[in-house]
Amino acid sequence: MAEANGKRDHFIGVDLGGTKILAGVFNSQLKCLGKVKMSTKPERGPDGVLERVARCVQEAVDECDLKLDSIRAIGIGAPGAVDPVEGRMIFAPNLKWENVPLRKTLEKHLGLPVFAENDCNACALGVYETELDPKPRSMVGIFLGTGIGSGIVLDGRAYTGFNRTAGEIGHMVLEVNGPKCGCGNKGCFEALASRTALFRKIQTAVEDGQKTVLTDMLGPELTDMRSGDLRKALRRGDKFIEQIIEEAAEYTGIAVANVINFLNPEVIVLGGGVMDQLADDMMSIITETAKDYALPGTAKGIEILVSKLGDDAGITGAAVLAKRESK
Amino acid sequence: MAEANGKRDHFIGVDLGGTKILAGVFNSQLKCLGKVKMSTKPERGPDGVLERVARCVQEAVDECDLKLDSIRAIGIGAPGAVDPVEGRMIFAPNLKWENVPLRKTLEKHLGLPVFAENDCNACALGVYETELDPKPRSMVGIFLGTGIGSGIVLDGRAYTGFNRTAGEIGHMVLEVNGPKCGCGNKGCFEALASRTALFRKIQTAVEDGQKTVLTDMLGPELTDMRSGDLRKALRRGDKFIEQIIEEAAEYTGIAVANVINFLNPEVIVLGGGVMDQLADDMMSIITETAKDYALPGTAKGIEILVSKLGDDAGITGAAVLAKRESK
Repeated sequence: MAEANGKRDHFIGVDLGGTKILAGVFNSQLKCLGKVKMSTKPERGPDGVLERVARCVQEAVDECDLKLDSIRAIGIGAPGAVDPVEGRMIFAPNLKWENVPLRKTLEKHLGLPVFAENDCNACALGVYETELDPKPRSMVGIFLGTGIGSGIVLDGRAYTGFNRTAGEIGHMVLEVNGPKCGCGNKGCFEALASRTALFRKIQTAVEDGQKTVLTDMLGPELTDMRSGDLRKALRRGDKFIEQIIEEAAEYTGIAVANVINFLNPEVIVLGGGVMDQLADDMMSIITETAKDYALPGTAKGIEILVSKLGDDAGITGAAVLAKRESK
Repeated sequence: MAEANGKRDHFIGVDLGGTKILAGVFNSQLKCLGKVKMSTKPERGPDGVLERVARCVQEAVDECDLKLDSIRAIGIGAPGAVDPVEGRMIFAPNLKWENVPLRKTLEKHLGLPVFAENDCNACALGVYETELDPKPRSMVGIFLGTGIGSGIVLDGRAYTGFNRTAGEIGHMVLEVNGPKCGCGNKGCFEALASRTALFRKIQTAVEDGQKTVLTDMLGPELTDMRSGDLRKALRRGDKFIEQIIEEAAEYTGIAVANVINFLNPEVIVLGGGVMDQLADDMMSIITETAKDYALPGTAKGIEILVSKLGDDAGITGAAVLAKRESK
């Protein structure tokens, strides 16, 4: 492994997901200089996927007209339980991985130090380090996308819990007899307010004859529906979509209140694809509902914010990790 | 204030509740030598109540044939948000107190150092210090009684959160449209599985004509029903009570799963009056339900235990606090 020298002042952040790999190059001020996206191709197994991660990193470096020898370290956020000390993926349900040596494999491919963390913890670290000033003592970042996850930051460090799986807020039960969740249970937060849950609700209602401008926009099958389409439908005054979004915001507010009641963090940040598109429509409902459901006195002074990092939260946090750990 | 000397090797733990004050005398090995209970008389206001706390402490010391000069320090667990640095009660909804200088007032009455903490945090510390060996890195103690509360211990210290109110798990919403809770919301854990919730469910069913041996035992009004009566009813094969207890155990299991998914502590301990009486009947259901609702891989190796401290958890934890802080 090449020794760090004065020139090695850039960092790579990688966000490894079930469908895509995103790699970004960051300067020492954690400004993103460029990024490259590739499909994950999970069917190729750990070795095949990690080879793609290495290629994605090389492409991102090239995209920024840099060479690997100007990179000090690489951080990677991965979807599951990660042992950050060994840089090992303990298990990743979506990828069907167990015991994959992320660090060792990527260091072999790239000849650079690699640091790994759970993807939601990485997102939370990215928000904490680049969006919050002054730094709170405790923060929870809740990310609403295809699924829902969260990362807990205590005293500036990712809190990972006993099995390195802390933050699985998407499977916090909010409504015991609620809709079925992908995990097999009912009424999980993820089954009530993730993009998947919203789309399923809309699809089912349309099949049952519900009118919405979405069918004018996307056709009767609602092909390729995205969170942005819901925003467009709201702008066109679609009352049905308004109600769907309101309900999701209420459930999110209740989840936020559960976090305030139980962990009482100084700051709660909401992010992810759903918030990127719909924060303007959801935030006031989320905040009001959270304050309604939090026990009197518990929410005083606690900030509920939206992350502006969007899809870059993961790569930013992974770069934060690379910068911190390679000091 | 008298200076500590070789003889000052005892500690007092006080559990201040909305209806009763319990004070216990502990030796340096945290063995309880004796205790005294008094009613709180909250209508007398902070000064009146704290005078009673001081008297209760003096009675407990006398009960153990000791004098105040053999006591090194006093710990007190109080029902609400406590600033442990200043020893001040920030607010206590049940007592309707705000900004009460617990430490200052009690030190004036007793001439001994006083340390204060939230009551559930104190209970959790008591369990952690006297019942767990080796010590886990993270623990959540959940206490089911008239209400439901919890205390979080991270790296051996009570984690209290931004407003010193962390651990309010009783108001974690588990069933959005569930029964009304004392806090004004619906479907809180406390409204589903506290003693109050169980008794209300039983009362309502009996008024609607439900048969139960409890009416033979206590009369048609179910006068002075206690958790122990439910245990007796179970022993007599009362199927209705069995179902009520089963449901409460399931809700408790779901709350435990929410904690495993979100905070992933190494150990979860269940305590409080309901568990004292009904642990034998509830624990296997709680554990099974928790494992069903925890995401695969997240519950691995996490212990779910019952505290044997019963009503003494609060005074034990307060004595732990006194011992730790007076070092």
